[in-house]
Amino acid sequence: MQFEDLNIDHISEADVVFLAVPHGASMDLVSQLLDLDIKIIDLSADFRIKDPKIYERYYREHTCPELLEEAVYGVPELRREMIKEAKLVANPGCIAVTAILGLAPVIKIVNHDYIIIDAKIGSSAAGETPTQASHHPERNNVVRIYKPTGHRHTAEIEQEVGLIANKPVKVGLTPHAVGMVRGLLVTIYTYFSREIEDKDVWRALRTFYRDEYFIRVVKEKKILHGLPNPKILVGSNFCDIGFSLDGHTNRLIMFSALDNLIKGAAGNAVQNMNLMFGLREEIGLHYASLHP
Amino acid sequence: MQFEDLNIDHISEADVVFLAVPHGASMDLVSQLLDLDIKIIDLSADFRIKDPKIYERYYREHTCPELLEEAVYGVPELRREMIKEAKLVANPGCIAVTAILGLAPVIKIVNHDYIIIDAKIGSSAAGETPTQASHHPERNNVVRIYKPTGHRHTAEIEQEVGLIANKPVKVGLTPHAVGMVRGLLVTIYTYFSREIEDKDVWRALRTFYRDEYFIRVVKEKKILHGLPNPKILVGSNFCDIGFSLDGHTNRLIMFSALDNLIKGAAGNAVQNMNLMFGLREEIGLHYASLHP
Amino acid sequence: MQFEDLNIDHISEADVVFLAVPHGASMDLVSQLLDLDIKIIDLSADFRIKDPKIYERYYREHTCPELLEEAVYGVPELRREMIKEAKLVANPGCIAVTAILGLAPVIKIVNHDYIIIDAKIGSSAAGETPTQASHHPERNNVVRIYKPTGHRHTAEIEQEVGLIANKPVKVGLTPHAVGMVRGLLVTIYTYFSREIEDKDVWRALRTFYRDEYFIRVVKEKKILHGLPNPKILVGSNFCDIGFSLDGHTNRLIMFSALDNLIKGAAGNAVQNMNLMFGLREEIGLHYASLHP
Amino acid sequence: MQFEDLNIDHISEADVVFLAVPHGASMDLVSQLLDLDIKIIDLSADFRIKDPKIYERYYREHTCPELLEEAVYGVPELRREMIKEAKLVANPGCIAVTAILGLAPVIKIVNHDYIIIDAKIGSSAAGETPTQASHHPERNNVVRIYKPTGHRHTAEIEQEVGLIANKPVKVGLTPHAVGMVRGLLVTIYTYFSREIEDKDVWRALRTFYRDEYFIRVVKEKKILHGLPNPKILVGSNFCDIGFSLDGHTNRLIMFSALDNLIKGAAGNAVQNMNLMFGLREEIGLHYASLHP
Repeated sequence: MQFEDLNIDHISEADVVFLAVPHGASMDLVSQLLDLDIKIIDLSADFRIKDPKIYERYYREHTCPELLEEAVYGVPELRREMIKEAKLVANPGCIAVTAILGLAPVIKIVNHDYIIIDAKIGSSAAGETPTQASHHPERNNVVRIYKPTGHRHTAEIEQEVGLIANKPVKVGLTPHAVGMVRGLLVTIYTYFSREIEDKDVWRALRTFYRDEYFIRVVKEKKILHGLPNPKILVGSNFCDIGFSLDGHTNRLIMFSALDNLIKGAAGNAVQNMNLMFGLREEIGLHYASLHP
Repeated sequence: MQFEDLNIDHISEADVVFLAVPHGASMDLVSQLLDLDIKIIDLSADFRIKDPKIYERYYREHTCPELLEEAVYGVPELRREMIKEAKLVANPGCIAVTAILGLAPVIKIVNHDYIIIDAKIGSSAAGETPTQASHHPERNNVVRIYKPTGHRHTAEIEQEVGLIANKPVKVGLTPHAVGMVRGLLVTIYTYFSREIEDKDVWRALRTFYRDEYFIRVVKEKKILHGLPNPKILVGSNFCDIGFSLDGHTNRLIMFSALDNLIKGAAGNAVQNMNLMFGLREEIGLHYASLHP
Repeated sequence: MQFEDLNIDHISEADVVFLAVPHGASMDLVSQLLDLDIKIIDLSADFRIKDPKIYERYYREHTCPELLEEAVYGVPELRREMIKEAKLVANPGCIAVTAILGLAPVIKIVNHDYIIIDAKIGSSAAGETPTQASHHPERNNVVRIYKPTGHRHTAEIEQEVGLIANKPVKVGLTPHAVGMVRGLLVTIYTYFSREIEDKDVWRALRTFYRDEYFIRVVKEKKILHGLPNPKILVGSNFCDIGFSLDGHTNRLIMFSALDNLIKGAAGNAVQNMNLMFGLREEIGLHYASLHP
Repeated sequence: MQFEDLNIDHISEADVVFLAVPHGASMDLVSQLLDLDIKIIDLSADFRIKDPKIYERYYREHTCPELLEEAVYGVPELRREMIKEAKLVANPGCIAVTAILGLAPVIKIVNHDYIIIDAKIGSSAAGETPTQASHHPERNNVVRIYKPTGHRHTAEIEQEVGLIANKPVKVGLTPHAVGMVRGLLVTIYTYFSREIEDKDVWRALRTFYRDEYFIRVVKEKKILHGLPNPKILVGSNFCDIGFSLDGHTNRLIMFSALDNLIKGAAGNAVQNMNLMFGLREEIGLHYASLHP
């Protein structure tokens, strides 16, 4: 895609542009927009990864590496202050933001060598173009492994979680297409070395998310949706987080769920825009979700 | 349930009885049936676990522990010869048989300390009784964690896999209800210590399953259902197994899929019956599955 | 249900009560609430039918017939001015309001002897109580005829449409449960005696619904959802109406779609409340629906 | 498509060819195959309509009208003896065969001027090619009117039902895409002039279908699937037929359900083949359907 394809006359008056272009197309657009003093929220992957070599491994050669440092990875719950000052925000991948929000608070209390992220995701995550995989007779009632290893969001997750852990972290990510349209659940399996208890995890979550409007800790024994469930988040910008400790195998399991089209994409982008313009973060994002 | 509830006149002439009673009810029935020289295929959990203390931990006190040794755990692919001679076969749990068939062939080449089983399962696995959880408005389009830790099938899996490993093995099992009626996929995350390659896993699978009619290794790159997918097993007694190696994190991921009502329950029971009566194993089980 | 079960202390201070009680329970509550000068929006069927004999035929004996005349049948698009003055509004049945909104504008141009209403409805319309019919394995992927003839909403439709036609009208109504949670489409088959053209129907619809905020006429040839489709109304209070003329058989087919939980129930009730209190009709009902 | 595209060497040895080609492609292939003395079961629409002018109205100009008389419309339940002798069988459209099987037995007792066929159909009926309409996020949870009037199967239904009625009959057909993959239900609304009772309809059905293996009359009051439901026919070659009389409006409603890929397509074609070769009609078609 060339920048000329866009209607420059309208854009030059804009305060902000949401770039919803294919991966690889943002790299060529961003510097021109920044020259026009337009703020950018980039929904592609081009400015998410700080290290151009890692970007290249998962995507292609980066043609605009000089802007990588300036770009801010757009998870408001992690770096609100940087987003407020940013001119270029890289909106995160949907699986990445879900996994990061679930894993970040506990990364310091778990073993970094055995972290597994099992993602279950709805059909809307695959985009608007009909394919054999999205053809209803093939897609309905399916549990399809669509990228057993090497999924691109691995890079974002490792980068962001590594920054919090203060050392490199590797994660194994396997996404599965399941029978729904909207929604994403990640089940994050970790092991702990020192003994930990429920209250340690509660404390970690409270510390991390004390004042977060869009993060809810969900952990109830006796109700139907007592752990995070993407079904009851449809239409909302909330990310629900829960956990379970397994003494039998010394594991801490984290659950993180959201609507992949809202908090996993456009809603999170609006949240970023609100911050960039000094607005209250939740403006335009008050919808509470549909149930059932 | 009391044995008197059954029509003893008809049963006393039977060659075989399929006990489809609640967990806990088989214990009281089995010895009476064996006295009548009737073979039993027990679909409850009562005779699956050899150690009555472990049974008690997951279920309740065992009232008939003296028959536990005689009972044969009914996965034909693991102990065909014993089933042929058995009078009492304990048909396995649906998640258990799926996980065991995926994990057993590779248990000797993976690290026993970090084995995670993430199960995705259809609504028919919850049985015939309507509940709030099975109510269509609540159950449709859902990804619901229904037992984050401590699921009962853990005991069966650890017992059977431990026998093959020749030492105790612990596994972490987390089942998720997903949007379909029939079908079960387990994703088994393991780590390896020594380097292994694709051909090592192929060899392990070939060795284990060379002549198995109902096991298919599914691992194709370029087709839609190139890894095990329960959707295309609906109605059949096949169990499809696949894998993926992840050099990035030294992981071997095993995938195992089946129809929970057939190979995960009644079909596997018929397969056991065929063996017990010297019939060809696949009689009555030739249906190839519906697709789409 | 007895009125004593309700917390009278709180209610006595209320301006309005939404009665979401089973059919038959409102009859005993309403007069007591009216005595307290509380406005009532009754979501049960008890005050929808003006003729107590017809009520009795479809439900049971009416114990409070003296209030039937005072009650206003709550379709704002039909009798806005009466609702503004009403103390007791009978919120319509979900199939009834959908059918009435589709049929009312054209009732004067079609043959009254052959009117057929085929309804397709999601699982949420059956209420919150799990039953065998709502059990996910039974309800998923279903097209189930649940009341081939004699459905109770027939009475409401005939009453309201007959008032507009200025003479008794009979309709045949057959609802089918189809594979979705929220949503309701009625396909209304009618015949015309005099020749009519597209523009006649457009004129009838424009005349009837010129200023209606929540009614949209949807009739586009070249787009995917160019006729009313409940899927794209999920979460909104809109009712979409479309039509098709069939010269081959002299038929006019009307289509009417809505979200059965919003415009078919609670949303319509809020719309009534807004009118009863002199508020703008769409307050609290601005949500535009989720898609996909 | 040209006949040269087919592998003539293999075909010339064949006894029978199933032509699963697009509408319009069979016309050019059939005469060449007949010259080779090969029997043909044509799954396209090209030889279903006897009158080339009607074919042209719904499809295109017919290039091989001289074979139209020889072709036999392939509903075994209507013309078994002709199919046994046929060289060219036109396998019916899926909606057409469903509607014909439901309407034919009662056409002589209902008013011919007001016949409405409302069809509800699964996504597999739209074929294998992914489109925007079949894209899972758009197709899931939908009730989409995809051809309000003028659907092509109208011609087949009118032709076959007219033959039985012994005079021209017009029907109005409106198909709706609903939330399932396999399955088709038609609800056929008719009016009666003389009073009729349940036993009259039972007698008509018994007379028509007395010895039919694949037709089942389903009409039970107290069970969940007591009227025809495509869900419980998935995978089978059965067509279930039921009815309901409505004294309120003098209507007889017929219900007819089947699996659109089996009795609505390939299964019916195999049934035709069996007849053409003097085999028992149900050979290869014994599968009893999956439930749930």
